Amino acid sequence: MSDTNAVRLNAQVRIVGTGLLGASIGLALRSLGIDVALADASPSSVHLATDLGAGRPAHADDQPKIIVVCVPPDVTADVIEAELKAFPDAVVTDVASVKLAPLHQLQARGVDITHYVGGHPLAGRERGGAISARGDLFLGRPWVVCRDEETPAWALALVEDLVLDLGAVPIEMTPEAHDEAVGLVSHVPQIVSSLMAKQLEGASDEAVRLAGQGVRDVTRIAASSPELWIQILGANKDSIVGVLENLQKDLQSVTEALRDVDAPGARKVIAEEMAAGNAGVARLPGKHGQNRRYAQIVVLIDDRPGQLAQLLTELGELNINLEDLRLEHAEGAQMGMVEFSVVPEVRETLIAELTKRDWRVA
Amino acid sequence: MSDTNAVRLNAQVRIVGTGLLGASIGLALRSLGIDVALADASPSSVHLATDLGAGRPAHADDQPKIIVVCVPPDVTADVIEAELKAFPDAVVTDVASVKLAPLHQLQARGVDITHYVGGHPLAGRERGGAISARGDLFLGRPWVVCRDEETPAWALALVEDLVLDLGAVPIEMTPEAHDEAVGLVSHVPQIVSSLMAKQLEGASDEAVRLAGQGVRDVTRIAASSPELWIQILGANKDSIVGVLENLQKDLQSVTEALRDVDAPGARKVIAEEMAAGNAGVARLPGKHGQNRRYAQIVVLIDDRPGQLAQLLTELGELNINLEDLRLEHAEGAQMGMVEFSVVPEVRETLIAELTKRDWRVA
Repeated sequence: MSDTNAVRLNAQVRIVGTGLLGASIGLALRSLGIDVALADASPSSVHLATDLGAGRPAHADDQPKIIVVCVPPDVTADVIEAELKAFPDAVVTDVASVKLAPLHQLQARGVDITHYVGGHPLAGRERGGAISARGDLFLGRPWVVCRDEETPAWALALVEDLVLDLGAVPIEMTPEAHDEAVGLVSHVPQIVSSLMAKQLEGASDEAVRLAGQGVRDVTRIAASSPELWIQILGANKDSIVGVLENLQKDLQSVTEALRDVDAPGARKVIAEEMAAGNAGVARLPGKHGQNRRYAQIVVLIDDRPGQLAQLLTELGELNINLEDLRLEHAEGAQMGMVEFSVVPEVRETLIAELTKRDWRVA
Repeated sequence: MSDTNAVRLNAQVRIVGTGLLGASIGLALRSLGIDVALADASPSSVHLATDLGAGRPAHADDQPKIIVVCVPPDVTADVIEAELKAFPDAVVTDVASVKLAPLHQLQARGVDITHYVGGHPLAGRERGGAISARGDLFLGRPWVVCRDEETPAWALALVEDLVLDLGAVPIEMTPEAHDEAVGLVSHVPQIVSSLMAKQLEGASDEAVRLAGQGVRDVTRIAASSPELWIQILGANKDSIVGVLENLQKDLQSVTEALRDVDAPGARKVIAEEMAAGNAGVARLPGKHGQNRRYAQIVVLIDDRPGQLAQLLTELGELNINLEDLRLEHAEGAQMGMVEFSVVPEVRETLIAELTKRDWRVA
């Protein structure tokens, strides 16, 4: 994080809505020493966020330089309008996961949006509420900033400084491009995951016992809150419906091909759909936001305290930096598997070193 | 692993098909000192598996007690039939991920299947081939064993001993129940993941840049091989088509409700589908095959060698056993987040201890 930004922002920040995102922003700004005024429709929510260290309750004579609206999508436009009126000198931004709907609502009401800069941090957790807030929630995450042709440069700079202060990466996009993008990479996957999970509702105990990592991964986000998602999906239907229609066509092709799988061309249809899936998943950038691949190494360890520490101490001695690490227990076995990633260049030497030191490299 | 089983199995095992599963079984059995004879339609594949330590090439005068058929689903019945004929005293099992289709093929040909016991290990890797083989591939994984009314107890016991020797958990099921279960928890999720991934094929670079963990999880298995999956899906279409039809209906309901989201009842339709998804994902047992939940703790560490080892050394000193551990790097930040799971009872004390030792607990 840049000190310059923190200094430049060393004015009052007002956060309206003290749920997961609002409280997390508050925590991060407070750790930089910035004065954070918290407001929420629920006074007890402000108390909780204050207790957690996300800021102080807002006062009638506050003079915020920047206001971050962190309320549910359905009421985002209302709150932005109210804040712009109450604080005509401040820049107002928001964190709603749709950007066109609130903008259109403000425009339809004739609100002067010169001081409004839309925002959307691509960050979240499965659990909501201030209680789940984390000051590091935005570290390294993309944060879309939607500028308007009318947006003054200083207002845009102020919002981007805030984003940088939170450790996130500002990405300028039009509201249209933003909504289309999140429709495809976030909203449709949510629907797909939820509907797949729905099919498991009536599964036999025997069947779920066979569930492996595949179905777990596909359905993980199906645990999300319907209340929040109804608002997001409703507000972005124009970007979503088209993708859902394509998906429906593809699902129908595969179902029909499977129904009569020995008919000429049926297997080809399925193979082509799956090959397109190979191509599609390859479009996603690597975990680290780049396509560089890391080499994986798996070491078997006894399942007792100290073993993993010993392994990592030795990796430290070998001066190896781990890019990623995962510990997995095998069911019913007194052993664990440690799978970690390193830059490919060190893989061979590292395996040799670990083997020499009697580690069981799988 | 039980020594008794290894001793009882201390006869010859013949493995036909030396891909990922065949070679992994060979590696595990060799580590128990069992004589493993390898056969494959491709001599070079046998050479590779032999070089990897999965066994020795099969001889004309081998007398295997048990034969494991590890060939693609399309040719499984053919190979089982040939093996039963060539080795009338041996028990033949297989690892095909569908169980009814090969059984029906054998029955239709009038093959005497008294010595055949179907099997299916729920284990695999994203990469195939002997080169990806691991002796620990089956540790703690469910391994379905399909007995027939005619199956002699000794033949079933032999296959279950083999499964136990490989560290897996034998689960007896009928072929019908097996195929229905994997259709729901494995085959349909594969189709869903592939078709979702297909929608990303034409995504803009801007859009994929916003991709988060959700879409990555939903589409991870879309990287699987179309060639293999065509065979699996084709052979299990009776269990799959019905689930796909339900999924299609649900997808259509959501799409229609979204298209006219302000119509009376439209939001309710979507909310109900998503709530059913919540209920469905809750059916999946916890990662450790049980529903016990672990408590998560997140610690921030500097992104340099030794930090993680230091943390784990201290956890070892505190005598804490980690149930799961995940290291994540934040993009562009010189820090990592270590998220680990512990039994809930130690959570509070552990956070206090770590904080006292100056670790940054998030």
